[in-house]
Formats: sequence, structure tokens, C-alpha cells
Amino acid sequence: MAATSTTAGPAAPLFDPEVYRERMRRAAELTRDAGLDALVLAPGPDLRYLVGSRADTFERLTALVIPAAGDPKLVIARLEVPSLSASAVGDLGIEVADWVDGDDAHGLALSGLPSNPTIAVSDSMPALHVIPLARHTGATPQLATAVLRELRMLKDDAEIEALRRAGAAIDRVHARMGEWLKPGRTEREVSDDIAAAILEEGHTEAAFIIVGSGPNGADPHHEFSDRVIERSDIVVIDIGGPVEPGYNSDSTRTYCFEPPAADVADAYAALHEAQRTAVAAVRPGVTAASIDAAARDLLRERGLAEAFIHRTGHGIGLSVHEEPYIVNGNDITLRPGMAFSVEPGVYFSGRWGARIEDIVVVTEDGCESFNNRPHQLVQL
Amino acid sequence: MAATSTTAGPAAPLFDPEVYRERMRRAAELTRDAGLDALVLAPGPDLRYLVGSRADTFERLTALVIPAAGDPKLVIARLEVPSLSASAVGDLGIEVADWVDGDDAHGLALSGLPSNPTIAVSDSMPALHVIPLARHTGATPQLATAVLRELRMLKDDAEIEALRRAGAAIDRVHARMGEWLKPGRTEREVSDDIAAAILEEGHTEAAFIIVGSGPNGADPHHEFSDRVIERSDIVVIDIGGPVEPGYNSDSTRTYCFEPPAADVADAYAALHEAQRTAVAAVRPGVTAASIDAAARDLLRERGLAEAFIHRTGHGIGLSVHEEPYIVNGNDITLRPGMAFSVEPGVYFSGRWGARIEDIVVVTEDGCESFNNRPHQLVQL
Repeated sequence: MAATSTTAGPAAPLFDPEVYRERMRRAAELTRDAGLDALVLAPGPDLRYLVGSRADTFERLTALVIPAAGDPKLVIARLEVPSLSASAVGDLGIEVADWVDGDDAHGLALSGLPSNPTIAVSDSMPALHVIPLARHTGATPQLATAVLRELRMLKDDAEIEALRRAGAAIDRVHARMGEWLKPGRTEREVSDDIAAAILEEGHTEAAFIIVGSGPNGADPHHEFSDRVIERSDIVVIDIGGPVEPGYNSDSTRTYCFEPPAADVADAYAALHEAQRTAVAAVRPGVTAASIDAAARDLLRERGLAEAFIHRTGHGIGLSVHEEPYIVNGNDITLRPGMAFSVEPGVYFSGRWGARIEDIVVVTEDGCESFNNRPHQLVQL
Repeated sequence: MAATSTTAGPAAPLFDPEVYRERMRRAAELTRDAGLDALVLAPGPDLRYLVGSRADTFERLTALVIPAAGDPKLVIARLEVPSLSASAVGDLGIEVADWVDGDDAHGLALSGLPSNPTIAVSDSMPALHVIPLARHTGATPQLATAVLRELRMLKDDAEIEALRRAGAAIDRVHARMGEWLKPGRTEREVSDDIAAAILEEGHTEAAFIIVGSGPNGADPHHEFSDRVIERSDIVVIDIGGPVEPGYNSDSTRTYCFEPPAADVADAYAALHEAQRTAVAAVRPGVTAASIDAAARDLLRERGLAEAFIHRTGHGIGLSVHEEPYIVNGNDITLRPGMAFSVEPGVYFSGRWGARIEDIVVVTEDGCESFNNRPHQLVQL
């Protein structure tokens, strides 16, 4: 078994260490409230949220263990310990329990807990670790999201400000779309230019780019291809990425080069109204599902129910997709500080598609939109 | 519940569809042999290996279900169905069971299986899906690796040829190292140049680059930094990425700019002998652990046991790290077709480090190395 130590190198947290200290305190409190013995959290958004760590490991277990009683510890392979210097782990005085290849890292994570503990794990933890932890504890773990979403869904002022900056940055990219999006160019060429602009406008990464021209716009998850864009195309542009300290933008607008045919204009007008109606429905006290219904009902009234083939939105923060999901069946009640996308779309297989997406945050009496480019079908 | 269909668009498999058909047949056979009711496999290397799919989803379940009895099916969100056109799913006639947001996708995956089925899931499947599947089946799933490693560990001729091409490509990058690796430049500048060369020499992506100069070389998982490289530095360069159809290179060499000090030369000589001894020990019939021991024992004899802080190697193929792991305790017997790294290293905290890494494949009477650049400390 590995030795344990409390040295984690110099810390370079993304926020004030006090922010992480308070989040850790609340996470332990919620762990107790949930009747769990511990959270066992994996690299990814959970570790980034709680200790500012951008660790990224797969087959070697890295886990932040937050017990209901007692002190948290970070289990990590010894050769990964230097990566902790870029986190708040040192500042927070979290015990670092390191291990070397051949040790029982899963047993180390659970040591000090009651026997057969009830634990909850990160959404992102791979089966490679979930299953050995289950074997050690004698039961399938629960999902830590049920505990952590109470924290992660409700953005504090610093997080809202980061999302606001992200929204403004991606709006600046959309504002420049006419520089690159032109008939005769391929989707890939346009995507390359957008990728550069996403960085130029302040993101640390171009996390995703969809350039869906003509029939490709009818596939909501099309990325880009070598298709040459035509003058008569409708083009869906869905783009985003993180700004420091890791909060994401995500905004979609739909473009054209000449006045649309009447049926396109009609369907787009219905989509526009559906998106506006859904945003207008966002306020504290209503359910996530009701926002999905607001968009869906309007499109159904216009005969477009079959054209809207996905949920209305997803929460956003350190993850591009997180709670709360704006989807039928999600009865979470919206509260101030929740941030998510409102992005209905209409898709006509083999022909064209359109989507309008803004990120909004719930305020005391409605919502603030972080994306404020025109919502019309934009003719370039 | 979603409708099911067998349409998956035009297929563009990476190998002959017959290769995938045979792999699927063997996977079903091994599922029966293991006494499982089904494998439930996630996007990533398992889906790529079995059906040539590069699907990449997270919160929306995509799963290839291979039952012990009956026909396989692919469960996928309807909006992801177009992505299947770049796979062999259509060619293989696999049933596509699609679903839309709000459906019970996990229930759909398990429909048609016996009640309370015994299932095994991919290593990479996130807890977000493992835990709902466990709830549906009434038990924690097993790891599918125990079944699939019998297939994926044993590379066929086409896979070995792909790994050979990958090895030659990364050797060409190492051969050019003197173009970029120079005192006065930062690790980041060198890394940028290496990234471009990795693509130029035939990789589709620069998957990882370590430029560990001076004290940074003592951290095996250091990537690169703004540190300016000094003439007296020892520099560890560990690089690789995939070549089509997705098989990875991974090779480390260690460089210097002037003759090393005597203690460095002595430690490097021991490392060189340890790596050569471990490679020479590779043949059918010995255990993975014995290869680790071959390197470790030699370094221990030379008083360097404490300097070698990680396992000796990892399997490689569609994943950079996969079975068989060359580590203490792994009693897997080596067989022809297994491919893995042999990469002992020595690390002196705050001072310097060195590592030598080749990818080898087990042959009938020994092994073939895919990396053939000089193993000495290379003075540029």
C-alpha cells in the first residue's frame, strides 16, 4: 500500500481558495444529509468544481473522497501527484493518499470508511473504477449528481460572470460570421476559420463546431464535412468552448445567403416564436419540463411536432452538458442561478434544418440571456 | 418508447465488413462461454473494434448490445443515427433501436434479454449509464474487458500492420528531433513543432506530447511548459498518436546536448540495459508480470529500484493504454499477437529523468519491435 502525505506542491487555484473550501464544506454537509458514507469523485467537472483540479486520468484511479464524517482525501497515482500543483488541493490541506502500480487503489479510496459503505460516484467515473468500488463496498454505488447538482446547478456570482463573458465571446464570433461563411467554400474551411476566431475572441479551446449546410443542417449532431456550401443553402452554426476558469459558451444561429422560400420562412418563424416563448417562460418556480413544453407545444400548434427531434436544452457550466436538462419528465423546479440552453430546432431530413440557441440564467423574476445576437434567420 | 429500424445509412467501414462480422461472431461466442446474457458496449475502442464506429456520446446512451442468444442491436439516440453511416453497422445488418429524449434508453438496451440479466459493460462506460443499467438488471454489471480482451489483446495481421506503420511514423518524428529540440527554446515551442511533424509523418492526430527537460523530466506525466531548455539538460520526449484506421504509436527517447555527467551516464546505461533485458524476455508463454520484473530486477541490482516509479508498460492498439498491462501482479500469459510498450524509466526528483519506450508485438518465438531508433542517450 502507498504511503500518504499532505504535500501537493504549490497551488494555483482558479478562484480564491475560500470558494473551494466552502464548496467542500457544503458537499460534505449534503453527503450527510443524503445518508451517504462518502462521495468518491472522479477527474472532470466534479474535481474541477470542488478543488480546481484539471486532472485527467483513465485507468489509474484518481478520486476525491468526501466522507460524511472526517476529513476528505485525494487518492492519486504517485506519478500524477505533480499535477496537483495546478489545483487548490495544497491550499485546502487535503490529505493526498498516493499509490503505485500494483497497489489496491480502490481499497485505498475506501479505507477509513465504515465497512460496506454507501457511496456515490461521479457521472463521469468509468465502469473500470465503478465496478471495483462496487465489489469493495458490496453494492452498486449511487450517482453523486443527486448530491452535487444542488451545488453545481446553482451558479454563484463568479460563475455567472464567467458564463456572461463566455456568452459575449461567442456572440463576437457570430457577429463576424460573414467573414467566413460564403457560398463556394466547404463546411470544413468555414469551420477552420471559426475555430481560429473562437480562440481570438477569448476562449481557451474551440470545443465544438457544427457547420450544417443544406441537407446537413437536418442532422442536429452533424459536425462539418467537405460539402461545398451553395447559395440556396440554409446553414446551422452551433459553436462554443470554455473561457477561463473553464466555463463554457454554446450558441447557435442559422444563416442564409438569399431570401428563403416561403415554406422555410414559415417554419423558421414558428421556430423563432417557439424559442422566444420558451425563454419567456423561464423564471423561478416552474419546472425544467415546462420550458421544454413551452417550445414543443408551440411547434406542435404549427404542425412542426415531428420536426423537433431533441430536448429543448441542457444545463451548462464547467461541463457543456450538465443538470438541469430541459426535457420532458424533468420535474426539477427552476431556481435563481441555474444556467442552461434554450435551443429548439426544426429538421427536415435530406433538405434543411434550423436551430436557435441561447444560454440563459434564471434570475429572481425571470432570466438573463448571455447570448444576444439577432434571432432571425440571418441573411449574409 | 422509440421505434426500431434497420436503416443506418451508407456504411464506410475501416476494414472489410467481413472482419467486423467475424469479430461480432466471436464476441457473441465468448459471451456465451462466460455465462453472460449480454455485453452492453459503449462508444470508444470497443465499438470501434467491433463495428468500426467512432461514435462519441456521453449523457445520451449509445450501446451495442451483443446477447448470448439472438441478434445484436445498437441502441442510439435518434439524432445520432446519421453518425452510423461512418461505420459497418449498416453492412452488418445490425438492428438499430433508436430513442428520443425522455425515453427509457437503458430499458430499451435490455429489452429482449432474460429478466434480471447478467451483463458486462465496457471499461469506458460512464457511471451515468452503468448505474441505471445496474438498477434495471438488479445487479452491478461485470466488466466486458474480461470477455473482449481475448479478442482485442490478440492483434490480427491487419492490426499488426497498422501498428507497424504507426511505429515507423513516430520513428520518423524522432529521427527529425534535432530540427526542433535545441537549447534556448521553450518546451512549448518544441512541442508545437513536434505536433506538426506527428501529422506530417502520417498520424491523424498528435495525441500526446511530453517534452520533459531537466527537472521536468523527473515527472513521468509532465506534458510541456514554458521552461527554456538549457544546454546541460537531459530531455525526455514521449510522443504518439493514431494512424488510420485508428491504431496508435507511442515511443520515448531521451536526448542531451553535451556529454552527460558520469552519474547520469551510469544511470542511463542501467536503464538501457533494463529496457533491452525486458524486451529480450518477451516471448510466448511467459507472464506480463515477468517482463515488468525483468526491467525492475535489473534496476534494483544497480541500486535504482526507487528511481523506477511506474509499471513497465501497457497494451496498445485502438487505445493508447489497454490490456495487457505489463505490471507486477498481472499473470496473463503472453501469446503471439499481443502488442504493448516496454518503457522503464528512472526519475530523480528536481534533477532529471530518462525513459526508453518501444512498442513490441509477441511473435512465435520472441517479439518484433515497431520502434527502431537508437536506444542510447542521443546527443543532438
